[in-house]
Amino acid sequence: MARKVAILGASGYTGAELVRLIATHEGLEIAALSADRKAGMEMAEVFPFLRHLTLPRLQKIDEIDFSGIDLCFCALPHATTQQVVSALPRTLRIVDLSADFRLRDPAEYAKWYGQPHTAVDLQKEAVYGLTEFYRADIAKARLVAGTGCNAATGQYALRPLISKGCIDLDDILIDLKAGVSGAGRSLKENLLHAELSGGTHSYSAGGKHRHLGEFDQEFSKIAGRPVHVQFTPHLLPMNRGILATVYVKGDPKVVHETLATAYETEPFLKVLPFGALPSTRDIAGSNFCHIGVTGDRIPGRAIIIAVLDNLTKGSSGQAIQNANLMLGLPETQGLMLAPVFP
Amino acid sequence: MARKVAILGASGYTGAELVRLIATHEGLEIAALSADRKAGMEMAEVFPFLRHLTLPRLQKIDEIDFSGIDLCFCALPHATTQQVVSALPRTLRIVDLSADFRLRDPAEYAKWYGQPHTAVDLQKEAVYGLTEFYRADIAKARLVAGTGCNAATGQYALRPLISKGCIDLDDILIDLKAGVSGAGRSLKENLLHAELSGGTHSYSAGGKHRHLGEFDQEFSKIAGRPVHVQFTPHLLPMNRGILATVYVKGDPKVVHETLATAYETEPFLKVLPFGALPSTRDIAGSNFCHIGVTGDRIPGRAIIIAVLDNLTKGSSGQAIQNANLMLGLPETQGLMLAPVFP
Amino acid sequence: MARKVAILGASGYTGAELVRLIATHEGLEIAALSADRKAGMEMAEVFPFLRHLTLPRLQKIDEIDFSGIDLCFCALPHATTQQVVSALPRTLRIVDLSADFRLRDPAEYAKWYGQPHTAVDLQKEAVYGLTEFYRADIAKARLVAGTGCNAATGQYALRPLISKGCIDLDDILIDLKAGVSGAGRSLKENLLHAELSGGTHSYSAGGKHRHLGEFDQEFSKIAGRPVHVQFTPHLLPMNRGILATVYVKGDPKVVHETLATAYETEPFLKVLPFGALPSTRDIAGSNFCHIGVTGDRIPGRAIIIAVLDNLTKGSSGQAIQNANLMLGLPETQGLMLAPVFP
Amino acid sequence: MARKVAILGASGYTGAELVRLIATHEGLEIAALSADRKAGMEMAEVFPFLRHLTLPRLQKIDEIDFSGIDLCFCALPHATTQQVVSALPRTLRIVDLSADFRLRDPAEYAKWYGQPHTAVDLQKEAVYGLTEFYRADIAKARLVAGTGCNAATGQYALRPLISKGCIDLDDILIDLKAGVSGAGRSLKENLLHAELSGGTHSYSAGGKHRHLGEFDQEFSKIAGRPVHVQFTPHLLPMNRGILATVYVKGDPKVVHETLATAYETEPFLKVLPFGALPSTRDIAGSNFCHIGVTGDRIPGRAIIIAVLDNLTKGSSGQAIQNANLMLGLPETQGLMLAPVFP
Repeated sequence: MARKVAILGASGYTGAELVRLIATHEGLEIAALSADRKAGMEMAEVFPFLRHLTLPRLQKIDEIDFSGIDLCFCALPHATTQQVVSALPRTLRIVDLSADFRLRDPAEYAKWYGQPHTAVDLQKEAVYGLTEFYRADIAKARLVAGTGCNAATGQYALRPLISKGCIDLDDILIDLKAGVSGAGRSLKENLLHAELSGGTHSYSAGGKHRHLGEFDQEFSKIAGRPVHVQFTPHLLPMNRGILATVYVKGDPKVVHETLATAYETEPFLKVLPFGALPSTRDIAGSNFCHIGVTGDRIPGRAIIIAVLDNLTKGSSGQAIQNANLMLGLPETQGLMLAPVFP
Repeated sequence: MARKVAILGASGYTGAELVRLIATHEGLEIAALSADRKAGMEMAEVFPFLRHLTLPRLQKIDEIDFSGIDLCFCALPHATTQQVVSALPRTLRIVDLSADFRLRDPAEYAKWYGQPHTAVDLQKEAVYGLTEFYRADIAKARLVAGTGCNAATGQYALRPLISKGCIDLDDILIDLKAGVSGAGRSLKENLLHAELSGGTHSYSAGGKHRHLGEFDQEFSKIAGRPVHVQFTPHLLPMNRGILATVYVKGDPKVVHETLATAYETEPFLKVLPFGALPSTRDIAGSNFCHIGVTGDRIPGRAIIIAVLDNLTKGSSGQAIQNANLMLGLPETQGLMLAPVFP
Repeated sequence: MARKVAILGASGYTGAELVRLIATHEGLEIAALSADRKAGMEMAEVFPFLRHLTLPRLQKIDEIDFSGIDLCFCALPHATTQQVVSALPRTLRIVDLSADFRLRDPAEYAKWYGQPHTAVDLQKEAVYGLTEFYRADIAKARLVAGTGCNAATGQYALRPLISKGCIDLDDILIDLKAGVSGAGRSLKENLLHAELSGGTHSYSAGGKHRHLGEFDQEFSKIAGRPVHVQFTPHLLPMNRGILATVYVKGDPKVVHETLATAYETEPFLKVLPFGALPSTRDIAGSNFCHIGVTGDRIPGRAIIIAVLDNLTKGSSGQAIQNANLMLGLPETQGLMLAPVFP
Repeated sequence: MARKVAILGASGYTGAELVRLIATHEGLEIAALSADRKAGMEMAEVFPFLRHLTLPRLQKIDEIDFSGIDLCFCALPHATTQQVVSALPRTLRIVDLSADFRLRDPAEYAKWYGQPHTAVDLQKEAVYGLTEFYRADIAKARLVAGTGCNAATGQYALRPLISKGCIDLDDILIDLKAGVSGAGRSLKENLLHAELSGGTHSYSAGGKHRHLGEFDQEFSKIAGRPVHVQFTPHLLPMNRGILATVYVKGDPKVVHETLATAYETEPFLKVLPFGALPSTRDIAGSNFCHIGVTGDRIPGRAIIIAVLDNLTKGSSGQAIQNANLMLGLPETQGLMLAPVFP
């Protein structure tokens, strides 16, 4: 019998992506959907592409009866999330997709998000949701904090290399290219089609992007010493997909071998043959992450390129992967959908 | 136990779409893939987005052992198809995605395709593959001819209206907007990104498009008299999707009621409330067709807008729907994937 | 010596397009720019693509000294425009780009724009700005009302045919495809890149689009009897360009000959050889309108396709063409920029 | 009186861009156009967006009478170019847009282009066409070699820094994002709209891109020692524009100051205020290059972002800028067209 889930914040892109994926997931059933300002509406009015599904009407959070709910996906904005999750039943399993529980250190949270954390106990309780590296903890967690989509991409490229110590930890550079759905369904001038299509620009350049907080926390933890990477994201005229070009100092063949070995049995992480590099087109709409490695003409430098779909493996697919673990379902259930190309 | 299928012409977009859909179809298993010029290659070399699947290596058609194959999808170019299908075992069930078996009348074939048909017996045997209107015949057919993607869109908008006689048969106009994947993976200058993106143009205007052969055949058959529609397609800078704006003379409310009633129980055809009109964004990557109807300010004129994904409901999804019927599987099996948005 | 112009509403796309065109127009000089909410900013902050130009700082309208201004372009929202223009010096020449002075009949204005006109005397005074058909009046006008961009496209396809009486006036259908910049720089969900790219939908279908007011006024005036066309616009994932597919009943060769003759000496209107049809790619960024005609397979039906750039020939280019006439400059001055392709 | 120019290779994008720009250049007149396989056709048949111009018919090169030609633009493929230029009159001034005369060292040419140079004397004679750095030489040159479009972008970001010695020469990294028109009008599968739109991938990664030959030659020459940069380009779903993100080790403020000072009087190179970063949208269709500098959170690291339009400042605009110098015309003549946005 399918487990009952609620989705809070169903009117955003990650909420809709959760519904899309759960629609063909035989182990999960959507029992409640919330959207504060759109409460009372049908999901099909907010997202007509979900018109074919029979779904509960959108509610306000406090109208939801959580008594029969096995797990709650929380896809709300950061800051709001802390308040909402604090008020949810303490017995409810939660997969949070916001930034609120990703950082363990309240000071780091305050630094990157510009305000103190108001639910420090929950922040401590939360397990970081990068599935492949926190499986056991996630399986028994009550609250899992989904990672940033950029943060996930960079970590898939780098974690095994830092663990193994095969690259220079003081000279890691992530130049990232991101599709626009990562910015959400927000009404900003620079997200308009007329402004965005046909061009590109960087944003939060020079070490200002909040996902650096996750990189710092995770890479330093693995290395056992502070690791600070360079990270510059760029916005591209595409809807889905992230491509991270990661420049490191280390032996390219060792880098490739390390990643290939680390991910050998991973169902969603595919390391390409040495020298082959991936495209975002090949993972769009799916939970897969493709990773390629090549050397530079300058000896001792390697380039790792990782691609994933920000809405799937970067957030909602990851969330379901974590939910599967938390509910004792097969980890890949509902997530083996092939990418959509062209 | 899953039925074994072969896909001939797996290196084109419709072939790849068949693989994508079958990847999560529990009743079908891909036993053979052909691609003449790419024989010997892995599918993942031709379509890296299918990298996560374990698939048979591409073969030449005559290398395939059809003895264990339950059904063969044929996604080859027209004309070639006639020859290939003629040479296949007579006992093999076939769903053809080309234009070769869509028209019943050899003279019509010769007129629209510029050459005589070389397999007239097969042409007669074939059942037209517009599932919702030929279900019983398809279920018992050996050879099913998949429809043109534009032809399917126009017919979903019009067939019930012609059957019921509620519109003027001499004044039907289909202005169609099509995404570029319908043109296939062919190297033509006008299909280059630099040429196509950011603009639009009509093609085959004025009654030259080959799918008119299907419209003529089907509409005349339903009406019991010749029906010739106007049909002008336009190429749009989008990859998937067809939107047909159909202008008819008839009572808009009756038109809407007729379509809503006709498709009431159809799993893939969704008629929107009167006045609501669909978007191609809401069906991309899925087997759904959304249909809307509104009136014009001029009394007695109705506008029907139908949208579907040319690669899915317009060809490969339709092909699997038909294969399901032919193999005694549930008609919707493997086809309930939600559209991908954004 | 260059004539001094002011641009009111310089922070929108049509305002920016005026600046772009005037930048290389040797007969005009920008003396003042207004943008109410952005007053005090530099134009380069609002539109960084104009960074290379030396321009006056943005002001509020009432801060502008109009005493040295030869002509004022008004690119403000409708309704606001009436108030602003009423308050401008009565001696100032004005080219208005809003909808406020396009319709001669206050009742028609009220019907299409949902509120009574508050400057009926100006409405009467204004000359309709479709340059090629109102040249003499425009040259001596004080107030010229720029046309709707869709309205311009449809009229270029149809006016000579209605004048000549060579088509059925009761069965004219305009199916229009429009790029997104026509919707302006407004923060609407459906204009986001993530929502718009990769798909298409109709809007204001069934006779609800406001540009129908212009069609009705102009076509009825030419015909000397009421003419009501069908008009359904569609939004396309492209930034610039309109393609109007116009279906009429009439002899295709006569239709072509009529248009070719009418526009023979027009510098910006290019009628293609019979059977050749235009693409929006070929006029983007320019003041040209390309028009093609073909016949349908059904005798007595013709298809006219007209394309233009909504921001240029459809609004700001047209405005400058009119301003040139009003100021006694060569009509084509500053407007012979070639389209940008690819 | 306008100088007469010929354009060899007018059927490609750079050829068409030359025509577009010359169309409003009052000092140049197109006297001949060549296109080998399309000889005999009108330019408007090959590029309908140039329909409004009166242009000479396309010819084969050997049909052109060069006696009255003041300057010849050569926009042919590399390798072919050597042969063609060798056969042109020795007195003819030539601006070449191919790769054939960019590298001074025949061995370097052979290394990057895979074959020996067959016109070594011309290779020696040619002046490298990066206008701002070779003005005097270009003004008196007979043969100018236009730069690679990527090579131009990277050099604008880096040359003054290398000259001044304010960055670490052994750790320069260029991560470049390029629009598709740089790949030309060539029929390649990966350039199809269906393949390219909506995604991104790297190409020639790891030090394989031919423009590295230019970087090596120029940077080493300036530095007086070998300088080898890392350079990884990515293909983006946009038609025009290059964005180079350049990572260096050096003081960000010094980097900014050095660039700002170096380009202070340059008409086409605009250095933004410190911390402001440019977008390709703001230079599309123009001859401008916008450059921004910011620091990283890691002290001693700077990020320079340079954007230009590959078809304009990156090739055809640059070519005209050089031709202006060679012909004694004002350097900026015909090149002050504003970018096109949106």
